[in-house]
Amino acid sequence: MSRIRFALAQINPIVGDIAGNSRLIVDAVIEASTNSASAVAFPEMALTGYPIEDLAFNRDFVRESMTGVEQLARVLRDEGAGDIAVVVGYIRESDEASHGGAIAHNSLAVIFDGKVVATYDKQHLPNYSVFDEQRVFNPGSTDCAVTIGGVRTGLLICEDLWRDDGPTARMSQTEKDVVLVINASPYERTKDDKRMPLMSHRAIEFGSPLLYVNLVGGQDDLVFDGDSAVTDATGTLIARAPRFTSSILYADVDGSAPDVGLDVRPQELSTPVDTGDLDDNDQLDDVWDALVLGLRDYTTKNSFPSIVLGLSGGIDSAVCAVLAADAIGASTVFGVSMPSKWSSDHSQSDAQELADNLGCHYVVEPIAGLVEPLESQLSLAGLAAENVQARVRGVILMAKSNQSGHLVLTTGNKSEVAVGYSTMYGDTVGGFAPLKDVPKTLVWALAERRNDRARRAGEVPPIPANSISKPPSAELRPDQTDQDSLPDYETLDAILEGLIDERRTVAEIVADGYDAETVKRVAHLVRISEWKRRQGAIGPRISAMAFGRERRLPITVRRTTL
Amino acid sequence: MSRIRFALAQINPIVGDIAGNSRLIVDAVIEASTNSASAVAFPEMALTGYPIEDLAFNRDFVRESMTGVEQLARVLRDEGAGDIAVVVGYIRESDEASHGGAIAHNSLAVIFDGKVVATYDKQHLPNYSVFDEQRVFNPGSTDCAVTIGGVRTGLLICEDLWRDDGPTARMSQTEKDVVLVINASPYERTKDDKRMPLMSHRAIEFGSPLLYVNLVGGQDDLVFDGDSAVTDATGTLIARAPRFTSSILYADVDGSAPDVGLDVRPQELSTPVDTGDLDDNDQLDDVWDALVLGLRDYTTKNSFPSIVLGLSGGIDSAVCAVLAADAIGASTVFGVSMPSKWSSDHSQSDAQELADNLGCHYVVEPIAGLVEPLESQLSLAGLAAENVQARVRGVILMAKSNQSGHLVLTTGNKSEVAVGYSTMYGDTVGGFAPLKDVPKTLVWALAERRNDRARRAGEVPPIPANSISKPPSAELRPDQTDQDSLPDYETLDAILEGLIDERRTVAEIVADGYDAETVKRVAHLVRISEWKRRQGAIGPRISAMAFGRERRLPITVRRTTL
Repeated sequence: MSRIRFALAQINPIVGDIAGNSRLIVDAVIEASTNSASAVAFPEMALTGYPIEDLAFNRDFVRESMTGVEQLARVLRDEGAGDIAVVVGYIRESDEASHGGAIAHNSLAVIFDGKVVATYDKQHLPNYSVFDEQRVFNPGSTDCAVTIGGVRTGLLICEDLWRDDGPTARMSQTEKDVVLVINASPYERTKDDKRMPLMSHRAIEFGSPLLYVNLVGGQDDLVFDGDSAVTDATGTLIARAPRFTSSILYADVDGSAPDVGLDVRPQELSTPVDTGDLDDNDQLDDVWDALVLGLRDYTTKNSFPSIVLGLSGGIDSAVCAVLAADAIGASTVFGVSMPSKWSSDHSQSDAQELADNLGCHYVVEPIAGLVEPLESQLSLAGLAAENVQARVRGVILMAKSNQSGHLVLTTGNKSEVAVGYSTMYGDTVGGFAPLKDVPKTLVWALAERRNDRARRAGEVPPIPANSISKPPSAELRPDQTDQDSLPDYETLDAILEGLIDERRTVAEIVADGYDAETVKRVAHLVRISEWKRRQGAIGPRISAMAFGRERRLPITVRRTTL
Repeated sequence: MSRIRFALAQINPIVGDIAGNSRLIVDAVIEASTNSASAVAFPEMALTGYPIEDLAFNRDFVRESMTGVEQLARVLRDEGAGDIAVVVGYIRESDEASHGGAIAHNSLAVIFDGKVVATYDKQHLPNYSVFDEQRVFNPGSTDCAVTIGGVRTGLLICEDLWRDDGPTARMSQTEKDVVLVINASPYERTKDDKRMPLMSHRAIEFGSPLLYVNLVGGQDDLVFDGDSAVTDATGTLIARAPRFTSSILYADVDGSAPDVGLDVRPQELSTPVDTGDLDDNDQLDDVWDALVLGLRDYTTKNSFPSIVLGLSGGIDSAVCAVLAADAIGASTVFGVSMPSKWSSDHSQSDAQELADNLGCHYVVEPIAGLVEPLESQLSLAGLAAENVQARVRGVILMAKSNQSGHLVLTTGNKSEVAVGYSTMYGDTVGGFAPLKDVPKTLVWALAERRNDRARRAGEVPPIPANSISKPPSAELRPDQTDQDSLPDYETLDAILEGLIDERRTVAEIVADGYDAETVKRVAHLVRISEWKRRQGAIGPRISAMAFGRERRLPITVRRTTL
């Protein structure tokens, strides 16, 4: 009976950067080899980054991926790691193009002794939610298993594991010691509820331990949480990598015996394993970490040196500023207070207090002298006058970005984005929207929790208490509050969750006890603001129904309900 | 041997408006019945509009479609048209949801005597280009033919016809007198090169005449051109409906004989049939008509009373203004000249001349007094100062929209959109971008052709000669021209067509004789401006590779080439 050590290396690649991603892979293999690993597994499409979308149609890129994996094999051997089996996700040219023009497979390569010794093409291609894989890839049709140092290892890629038919069904009938599945599975607040039971269920079905390695990092609107894990043959979760950070998880696997044993020693070799359930605070921390990672990776992978955002004294901009500081450090965060004649005194003092707490840059740019010539020349009043204030603020932030190369943050939250409570080309200005998928009620909970974390760490809670407690207001006219035009946020968010996240009908939500007129009005607002969302900045997805590629609706629709 | 008259009714529905679309259908059936039609066919998803995207996941909407078709059957009988066979596209609930959550089929119903007598579910679901049908629909698995007054009629839906396997293969083996295919096939400049040969090829393969009915109208970024047509059993095109307008085409079909004859008398019953090839001018006219239809339908289906746009004196804004006047009439088009201190004299005189030619509203809003306070307070210079001018113009146009409810047009062309030659939240402001898919060189050709059409009609050519002949300039600094930063437009458009429309590699384009550094720079500009395109207004698609849902690329990509 043989025993070998598997390393599950959750790395953070950059889409397109095959040279850079290869370096991450080589470094991780060398680190794992010093910890006696004989096999190292990397996530789905670790070599190319994920998702690559229509880059899959680019013949140059497909060829770069194929030569890249051969090159990787040679480099690994040259650096003394040729005797380690490496399993890595990449893309591979198909024998022929599909009717729709797809030319590549979503594949894995098994590398050993300087060569690619086996490949496997993903058989089930997800084409729902954020995924368009039937558009860009051709499915594989052949199963794959390899024996690594006496350990018979079945291989799967991501969606394969989620489907009962095809490769999982055949895998259950196959003699093997372990099943390894490589993944690029994005974070969702409730995904643990699905991913962990699935692993357990499949391990039992397979009658073998299951090794699960997942991507980590932000890629545009998606955040990959890592959270690689191992279950034994009884479906019990016995090891788990940290979330939202690059890491290697080790598992020793026995081979060639019908009743395999699995010995995992993560404590000796890796960061501490937490196999327990997440409580509410853990889940808030996960959301926070996902938002920070998504923002950090968007900023750094696109080479922005710094971030600028408007600080209104309100909760959304305060939370965005803290996220920015957590992501890239307060010394490269620039807050701008842009008071108008309608701004309350606290809007400036709260913003100032936030900036002081964080230690970020802070400047005040009053807008009255900029708005007045526009109001006067264009004879503005009412909504037009309100919106001009927001748009002048957008002009200021973009000017500062043009001057200094800052990434501009859009601070709107999911509740606002849903009902179109924003000024186009005003507060919607920016390249990244950290709270785009965070409902207002969750923004408050995150703020409280972040302040609690600071207190427990002996730090000053960054978010001013007044920013959390005061009634939300756009302050575009005297004494305005959000609730002049919207239901209270508890109600609004509950209705929105029903309409959007749960795809429930107006009638079903009304049956839960919500006021019919209110539900209809919210549904109407959601529908008519689709054109705004189409022009909105991207932001990190934390739900199972984020605005963007996951929810594709026409702008032109004539209906009375959603 | 029987003979019946088919009517192919190309109508212009609105997505979601089942009641309104039903009315269009009933009206067309009654009109066709007065012309002795025994069968009337409507396009794919004529009842619901197309494409509905993720509305297909909405259970309410699926039910509305199913009850709507039953209701339509009753109304037709009540209005005395129960003895006419009506074939209409709609959506139908599936027996079970797919793994990805799809709950509906893309279907057709055959209605007769107040009832749905047969249904057919589309078997091939396109999932490439602009189509996401494997995401939102479940495929059918059963073929369908009906006998209408002795004429054995095989039925297909759109993509079914484009694929060699499945329903077309079986149709070839089936005894039938005619094949009817209902479609929602969007216009592309070169689609005739594909659609007409396909019809001919299939008719020969089927050994029977082929009736093809297609949707007409604009739906967000898609324009459906109608162009319904009939071929005989030898594959010869013998009747063709007009393009870009609602219309009914008639065809008399003989039934129940193995060698069927087809007698079409469109001259007596319909608009004149043009079965000839399109020359270059016809193709320019088609593009113009597509742009007008797309703009008109976006404006009217979304209930905008009027259109506003900036008039710079340049060619793009001039062409947009003429398109707007052609779409909704000059009396509801509002042009705004917004000269800066860098604007040439001709920028205002050319804009004024255009407005005079068109008879649209025209107002001058100088921006110097609005820009100066921003420049001064923010110490702007260089790019930041240039962009502020464009952004102040955006603020002005949006203010006018807020005041009067106008739709704001974005006047940028495809060449600019491709390389990001625009100021975000400046000239990109607006709800609809008529030239988004029109390269600059084609903008010039369209302008010349539109002026020619005016001359031939004895009208004043609307576009000032100077707007066509002068070198393009953003006029954001003294003596600026586009060619300070870009290759000449002939070269740029040729490179862009290779990179984008033809998905060719940089190396392939360089091999054609283009300068390597220039091609690389253009590819780089295309890549780094993806974030701008994500926030851009939609515009009518006229190519087979428009920016938008057809070309899905990450923002975050680290590569040196496309």
